[in-house]
Amino acid sequence: MALLSGISSPEDVRKLTPGQLGELAQEIRDFLVENVSRTGGHLGPNLGVVELTIAMHRVFSSPRDTLVFDTGHQSYVHKLLTGRQDFSRLRQKGGLSGYPSRTESEHDVVENSHASTALSWADGIARANVVSRRHDRHVVAVIGDGALTGGMAWEALNNIAESPDRRLVIVVNDNGRSYSPTIGGLANHLDTLRTTQGYEAFLDWGTRTLTRSGAPGRFAWRWMHGFKKGIKDVIAPQGMFEDLGIKYIGPVDGHDTAAMEHVLRRAKAYGKPVIVHAITEKGRGYKPAEEDIADRFHAVGVIHPETGLPVAQSRFGWTKVFADEIVRIGRRRPDVVAITAAMLHPVGLAPFAKEFPERTFDVGIAEQHAATSAAGMAYAGLHPVVAVYATFLNRAFDQVLMDVALHKAGVTFVLDRAGITGADGASHNGMWDMAMLRVVPGLRLAAPRDEPTLRAALRASVDIDDAPTVVRYPKGAIGEDIPCVEELDGVDVIGRLAPKPGGVTARAGAAPAATRRVLVVGIGAMAQAGLDAGAALAEHGLEATVAAPTWVLPIPAALVKLAGEHDLVVTIEDGLSDGGVGALLAQRAGEQGIRTRHVHVGLDAAFLDHASREQIAVSQRLTAADAVRDTLAALAEC
Amino acid sequence: MALLSGISSPEDVRKLTPGQLGELAQEIRDFLVENVSRTGGHLGPNLGVVELTIAMHRVFSSPRDTLVFDTGHQSYVHKLLTGRQDFSRLRQKGGLSGYPSRTESEHDVVENSHASTALSWADGIARANVVSRRHDRHVVAVIGDGALTGGMAWEALNNIAESPDRRLVIVVNDNGRSYSPTIGGLANHLDTLRTTQGYEAFLDWGTRTLTRSGAPGRFAWRWMHGFKKGIKDVIAPQGMFEDLGIKYIGPVDGHDTAAMEHVLRRAKAYGKPVIVHAITEKGRGYKPAEEDIADRFHAVGVIHPETGLPVAQSRFGWTKVFADEIVRIGRRRPDVVAITAAMLHPVGLAPFAKEFPERTFDVGIAEQHAATSAAGMAYAGLHPVVAVYATFLNRAFDQVLMDVALHKAGVTFVLDRAGITGADGASHNGMWDMAMLRVVPGLRLAAPRDEPTLRAALRASVDIDDAPTVVRYPKGAIGEDIPCVEELDGVDVIGRLAPKPGGVTARAGAAPAATRRVLVVGIGAMAQAGLDAGAALAEHGLEATVAAPTWVLPIPAALVKLAGEHDLVVTIEDGLSDGGVGALLAQRAGEQGIRTRHVHVGLDAAFLDHASREQIAVSQRLTAADAVRDTLAALAEC
Repeated sequence: MALLSGISSPEDVRKLTPGQLGELAQEIRDFLVENVSRTGGHLGPNLGVVELTIAMHRVFSSPRDTLVFDTGHQSYVHKLLTGRQDFSRLRQKGGLSGYPSRTESEHDVVENSHASTALSWADGIARANVVSRRHDRHVVAVIGDGALTGGMAWEALNNIAESPDRRLVIVVNDNGRSYSPTIGGLANHLDTLRTTQGYEAFLDWGTRTLTRSGAPGRFAWRWMHGFKKGIKDVIAPQGMFEDLGIKYIGPVDGHDTAAMEHVLRRAKAYGKPVIVHAITEKGRGYKPAEEDIADRFHAVGVIHPETGLPVAQSRFGWTKVFADEIVRIGRRRPDVVAITAAMLHPVGLAPFAKEFPERTFDVGIAEQHAATSAAGMAYAGLHPVVAVYATFLNRAFDQVLMDVALHKAGVTFVLDRAGITGADGASHNGMWDMAMLRVVPGLRLAAPRDEPTLRAALRASVDIDDAPTVVRYPKGAIGEDIPCVEELDGVDVIGRLAPKPGGVTARAGAAPAATRRVLVVGIGAMAQAGLDAGAALAEHGLEATVAAPTWVLPIPAALVKLAGEHDLVVTIEDGLSDGGVGALLAQRAGEQGIRTRHVHVGLDAAFLDHASREQIAVSQRLTAADAVRDTLAALAEC
Repeated sequence: MALLSGISSPEDVRKLTPGQLGELAQEIRDFLVENVSRTGGHLGPNLGVVELTIAMHRVFSSPRDTLVFDTGHQSYVHKLLTGRQDFSRLRQKGGLSGYPSRTESEHDVVENSHASTALSWADGIARANVVSRRHDRHVVAVIGDGALTGGMAWEALNNIAESPDRRLVIVVNDNGRSYSPTIGGLANHLDTLRTTQGYEAFLDWGTRTLTRSGAPGRFAWRWMHGFKKGIKDVIAPQGMFEDLGIKYIGPVDGHDTAAMEHVLRRAKAYGKPVIVHAITEKGRGYKPAEEDIADRFHAVGVIHPETGLPVAQSRFGWTKVFADEIVRIGRRRPDVVAITAAMLHPVGLAPFAKEFPERTFDVGIAEQHAATSAAGMAYAGLHPVVAVYATFLNRAFDQVLMDVALHKAGVTFVLDRAGITGADGASHNGMWDMAMLRVVPGLRLAAPRDEPTLRAALRASVDIDDAPTVVRYPKGAIGEDIPCVEELDGVDVIGRLAPKPGGVTARAGAAPAATRRVLVVGIGAMAQAGLDAGAALAEHGLEATVAAPTWVLPIPAALVKLAGEHDLVVTIEDGLSDGGVGALLAQRAGEQGIRTRHVHVGLDAAFLDHASREQIAVSQRLTAADAVRDTLAALAEC
């Protein structure tokens, strides 16, 4: 790592000779494979942008020029070149974030990992540079071809097209995995790209890509294909890009640093919005990734660096139960269709897609369209199941409200990665869903606690055809089944814990009184914490009822009634305690004149730094022990 | 109205001879001007789609074929042709909705008035038709050129492009107000449109339009201009539309029923997704609208039918105060810029734009981009003020959260039409804002009660540069100033009302006790209702404090303290009572061990049918009298 270790800022990158850049790229690749295989992280995307990022830092001067990375997980190389080379605790508490982070570096700007935002950020910064007459500053946005399918990206292009005065370079990182050496050769000779030969070869590449990737890929290709007209602009300036008002340069081999530098310098000199179309290869230079078809190296856990095989077996998780149950449902219900927003594999829809290809729709990174087209399908008699990560449903709040709920459409949203996700940092935590969705009229939300309740919730959801339904569950392994010991009008009671004889009283010195009764409500995956808290409270001489209602929105009447039969209610939820299920339960109880005291154990409405899920649960006081402590403190005050 | 009155269903439209259609169109125009001038409503857009709608109903068979209208305010003609000709109570309680309404007719599908959704609805319905093998059914979506700037529309086009099997017709209603007779002539001869002459004339029209309309118009034109390649497809099928996978037909004169019928029949026969580009004139056939430059006839109040002049003078409203204050702020703060999403005039930014054109940005119907590009501008040192209708900010929830708040960007959102809006129906009520925004970390929200507090809130907002700020106010006239009688750490007290001697006690027969103290919190425009309620409670022998905090999120500490000094708190807010400011105040008080009872007077989380704002306030129990009744009832229980 002779070269890499000598780089502490982009200035050092600019000092290198062109002849040293190939060696630097190799060192960076070795570094990434060695380090990310130890910690886990986004390997494939970063191996794909090594040369591209080197070239960017040689041509532009961050932070005076602003570099924006869409989704941010492709910023590892950028981190290495801006003085951050300790990857030993990548994505771990106190270590480097897996995304850009303003607290880490003045070279980082956008921390949001939700896709398709980079062009809007870049447009805003470039506009501000014009208003402030900082005409020497450039803004460079790197965006993947997939992210161009998101509506925000189109909205931004619309605006960028209107702005001949902005110094804005859009690098389209077109990392089709079926990248062809033919194109690489072409890109080495950018100046010959405008010949018919180069053009035809590019078309040829696209046609091959088309046959291998899914629907969004095909569209992206056709759109890129539209870019080709830009190639001919110089000869006959009336192509699509003149119409749009954005200059196009490309395609260029994103792994040829010299070629990348050349086009970026041209783009910089142009002084107006310009698109640089770079062809890159995800996983470039790492054999297991290059040979992988299913893109398993996009994000990895801890792996063996040589083979790319995972060190630990992946455990049986919530996603897999969903994947299995939705196929079963699909077999008996021909009207059930599945929708994914470019996440077929991660959300567990691949088995359904395999068995029912004509009933599976990948809409691209387009959650808004996913929700509203689902409302359309429901209108026409189908029951769509939209499977997304919880944090991404925020993109479609308006559509869930105004298209699905207002029209009483029977659409099921399955929210994976709800609650704390941890290592991916602030913008990936799926913690906003319940607080956001509880205001949606008619919406019914299930937070199952284990495999049987997840399966049952899914089956029940597709039977509801006059309202949106939501089933939410966390990331990771699913625990043991937690049996229901008593069912009260649809509310599962999973524990009735008698006060332990001789148990300590709630507070030393408190007057002896009738045994106090506590209702512990464990929402979804927090049911086990609820049971643990209930047992501990019994040890303290309290009588504890532990409820784990699967359907939590609207608040079940039986739960309100149960609250009234206790002296205190403590709700444990992996969502916001402000405006969460517990808060709504308290409000409903109050409306019925029930004056029982409520304690809410949940997450702060705050952005949580990356750390393990367990560490975040502890720091957010979201454990059984916290529930016990808060309950005892509240009882002491009563 | 000889022809119109004989039409009770689309079948009757189909029975007419081509020679009768001109007369029918004239009757419909006369009907619209006569009726809408009496009730108010969307006049211009509907005058523009008379022939287009007639043609649609002659070529397609609703409801077997599905007709979807984007934004829905262009559906009056559709209503007239589907058996709804009593417009006497248009947009009034119990009368016809100003938008499609499923309860009104089986011919209505999409009630949501938020823009850019129609293509997603249509895509979903068409997909469902394929899955269900209903191959004889067609879906027709009518969308304006402006709505194509919204990201959702692009997401949908992306998906539609992937679907050669869908019978989906997209009618682009290109109602450029600078519509030229030249093009009309061309469109009368659709078959000659593919000649160079027609093509050049079309280009010519676009160039003229370009000089008159704003930025989104220019973009839309250039995009349309891209459509032109479709014209040449038949000769040389390698234009932009082959790339996109969507067939294009046009442009066609949208006021030539025969031409429209001809192209729609061709589109129907095509059997795959196809775009029909219709050129229409907003306000067509109504002289005051045709001659108007500022598009004041898009939506009108009650007007004189001959002159188009309003019957009642428009009153001095919240919007106008904002319009004035933002200009003053702009004069002393060169870093303040304004952003609108295609609503420059309605939100009151026109005076600012006139004085600071280079600091005003109209991003098109693109709320997501508005929010995120604002975050970019804030990063680069500006203070953006994003002015939108409250209901439309729902579109940008994710961006407000992840781009603005997470990055601690000093961006001010000004929400006009917050709370109940009334006549526009369920999807226009700006009632979701506070419940949605209260979960956003760091966000500060002001609900001013009168002109001085609105001006002060705006001034304070632009001084906050490390968090999103929101200033929200309702539609309509602004009331008299309500002076502060006592200021408690930033919380304005507007009334201290002593119990009236000899006032009735809270409940007949209740035991005499110390005078009970009630805190009335009037949020924003509900401050006056708070004062009225306070006075009435004093009449009942209670001591009432009336607070009207301008800044309500986060909950002011002084307000929590004040709550603790009273026996009961009643909060009146024109937002959701579930998860509103009152609910959060109760939660904060509870967290501090304050056991004061809380009563929430606010809106149900429900979709509210169109009616006047006053009628909705009454039906939602959101008046001073309701607050008094609920307070007395709660005190009786204590």
